[in-house]
Amino acid sequence: MPRRYDVRMRFSRFGERFTRQTGTRELMDDLGRALAADEPVNLLGGGNPAHIPEMLALFRREFRRLLDDEREFRRMVADYADPAGEQGFRAALARLLRDACGWTVGPENIVLTAGSQSGFFQLFNLFAGPRSDGGYGRILLPLTPEYVGYQDLGVEGEIFTARRPAIERLPGRQFKYHVDFATLTVPQDVAALCVSRPTNPTGNVLTDEEIGRLGALARGAGVPLILDGAYGLPFPGIVFTPATPYRDEETIVCLSLSKLGLPGVRTGIVVARPEVVEALGAMTATTSLAVGSVGPVLMRELVASGAIAQVSESVIRPYYERRSRQALEWLADSLDGYEYCVHRPEGAFFLWLWLPGLPIGSAELYRRLKARGTLVLSGHHFFPGLEEDWPHRHECLRISYAQHPDAVRAGLAAIGAELRRL
Amino acid sequence: MPRRYDVRMRFSRFGERFTRQTGTRELMDDLGRALAADEPVNLLGGGNPAHIPEMLALFRREFRRLLDDEREFRRMVADYADPAGEQGFRAALARLLRDACGWTVGPENIVLTAGSQSGFFQLFNLFAGPRSDGGYGRILLPLTPEYVGYQDLGVEGEIFTARRPAIERLPGRQFKYHVDFATLTVPQDVAALCVSRPTNPTGNVLTDEEIGRLGALARGAGVPLILDGAYGLPFPGIVFTPATPYRDEETIVCLSLSKLGLPGVRTGIVVARPEVVEALGAMTATTSLAVGSVGPVLMRELVASGAIAQVSESVIRPYYERRSRQALEWLADSLDGYEYCVHRPEGAFFLWLWLPGLPIGSAELYRRLKARGTLVLSGHHFFPGLEEDWPHRHECLRISYAQHPDAVRAGLAAIGAELRRL
Repeated sequence: MPRRYDVRMRFSRFGERFTRQTGTRELMDDLGRALAADEPVNLLGGGNPAHIPEMLALFRREFRRLLDDEREFRRMVADYADPAGEQGFRAALARLLRDACGWTVGPENIVLTAGSQSGFFQLFNLFAGPRSDGGYGRILLPLTPEYVGYQDLGVEGEIFTARRPAIERLPGRQFKYHVDFATLTVPQDVAALCVSRPTNPTGNVLTDEEIGRLGALARGAGVPLILDGAYGLPFPGIVFTPATPYRDEETIVCLSLSKLGLPGVRTGIVVARPEVVEALGAMTATTSLAVGSVGPVLMRELVASGAIAQVSESVIRPYYERRSRQALEWLADSLDGYEYCVHRPEGAFFLWLWLPGLPIGSAELYRRLKARGTLVLSGHHFFPGLEEDWPHRHECLRISYAQHPDAVRAGLAAIGAELRRL
Repeated sequence: MPRRYDVRMRFSRFGERFTRQTGTRELMDDLGRALAADEPVNLLGGGNPAHIPEMLALFRREFRRLLDDEREFRRMVADYADPAGEQGFRAALARLLRDACGWTVGPENIVLTAGSQSGFFQLFNLFAGPRSDGGYGRILLPLTPEYVGYQDLGVEGEIFTARRPAIERLPGRQFKYHVDFATLTVPQDVAALCVSRPTNPTGNVLTDEEIGRLGALARGAGVPLILDGAYGLPFPGIVFTPATPYRDEETIVCLSLSKLGLPGVRTGIVVARPEVVEALGAMTATTSLAVGSVGPVLMRELVASGAIAQVSESVIRPYYERRSRQALEWLADSLDGYEYCVHRPEGAFFLWLWLPGLPIGSAELYRRLKARGTLVLSGHHFFPGLEEDWPHRHECLRISYAQHPDAVRAGLAAIGAELRRL
């Protein structure tokens, strides 16, 4: 239909910045299209958690209880929450974190966000970018590969600076990344450090020692350490190695309800100093009035009773650990005879496949797999802020093993077939 | 507890901008505190919708149906939605808008946001602010008073320019604002026009003629007209005067599930050209992965069947119209003998009280009322972008009549008592 009027559709700089094709968009577009597709797709790309029957039954039971309680139901859907998030949930969570982790926190240390990603948008832009004193703050990622979703969050300019990891070779085609403390310093313009634990995309779990040293480094530099625990401790607890939940007064811990199995409720959690909590609440009030109450009200009793930590330990962790072993076996079968390495799966729900010397680059491999109905993520997205070139960046794939086992198995077989075609 | 380390807590310019005290923060902080308060508060400040029993029963029935359907339940909470929002809801809504309003729209014209306010954050910053060509776009508000929540949404600089209204005096201490077309032009730097209909805060409903003229003005200037229908047509339909839903191809219509009674699910809706839909979806993917699915999945069948429009007409509109008449009567009783005017309540759920010659200013009146347990909003917040000074700005209050009738009555009595104290 011809347009009668030539309406200016000129976007602002902000508009241009946030409508570029990004790794996150690619990921979410793939996910949306796959969910709507008629043909079966092996969906090994996104971060969608598994549908664990016990967890879905638990959520359903809680929903039913809330539907029977008029006041709770109203609180869940019919009222705007406090800008910092539903107060009852925050109080219950503070108690849980005191009891389960020994953290000295109250509700004033907790602010909810519209999902973890929104929390990072707020946090990164709170600290990084141009300052009114003329300076410019950056976020230091001490270890890449690191989460693709960070990459494009900066409202203005490139807000990240990042470091390569040290690589430890392990038996059985495995390897593990470590923070390379030998070369790690905190430049003067760094406003915060940030790591995910478990690491998305690699399934690496930084050791207690590594985290302690990062905390000390941040304190020494006088900046906060942001710890992304979306897959981590104390919930959903998708961690297969011994690891202790970490927080000191200057650490900002980010948690989420998504990987418990509730990505649709969009509830992220930030545990931080009251000044940071207040700042994030103010940002929420101004830019979106309030965050949703469904997730917080739904989970409040499970948090208050500690059940959320128990099911993380007794249901969620074992579930993904089993899936991880299974995926590793299928990977070994599918890639038999091909030269590959895989990061030791210590948590989250991804295999991080390293294909040394891959002739076509991981982005092209992603496209070829997509054309054949298998969605993964190209590893090159996962180096936000790493300035130097490094062949390793183009030799890796992130493969989710959270979806239906048949899809995971078929997807891994497709990867093996594609590699043998090269 | 003394801090061991002097951690830099320096915020970026973005951080400073979004942590200022704003009208929206004041409103949301008041709301949060009132909901948590032990003492009763007459909550006439916020935009929280009423708890209409028929609507709550309807939502509950839908929830129960979804809980009994495994696939639907998963879709509601356990999967990330498409960046543009849950696809089934968007398809159903497109059909409704075609059938009920005659708009030529498909799912490609609809994008969901994390509440209406988030949609405006995205929309305003998409069009307004610094452009990469060195220009700067602004949003023209052709009629103030206009929604307080717009005020602080601009990421950089003052993005609004606004106009005073023409005032029509009506019998019975009433008045009505009109767009002052005699003086309205669209400056070259304007990137979009925006009006709310019904107007928040005044309850004004711009006439079909006024909206048609604004649409023509926008097209003539080659920019989109953003129409904020959070309280409007076709749902929740809180409109007491004859008014037709308006959209042409260049109009961006914003709707919401909040004023149906579902603010806790944070679902905003933007109906626009596919380019705008795609841009907003991209912003969502990058900054928050996806919006929540609870609201869209919950309401999908009610949208598909047209029930959402029917209950708007048969339940919601009559409910608020009754509440509006009741509030007007109580206002007349409470302010009897005092010199006041009130905007004719034509929609939404606010009384806009004008106190010509108010000696203390509306901000001080707000503080005094708050100290006595009655929360309203000072009218001075509702003139975003109006450069000129104008005594009228400091002579008005926004009073919600959506809360419990006892609170509304007591609050109006408190206002009368306070005014007589002056």
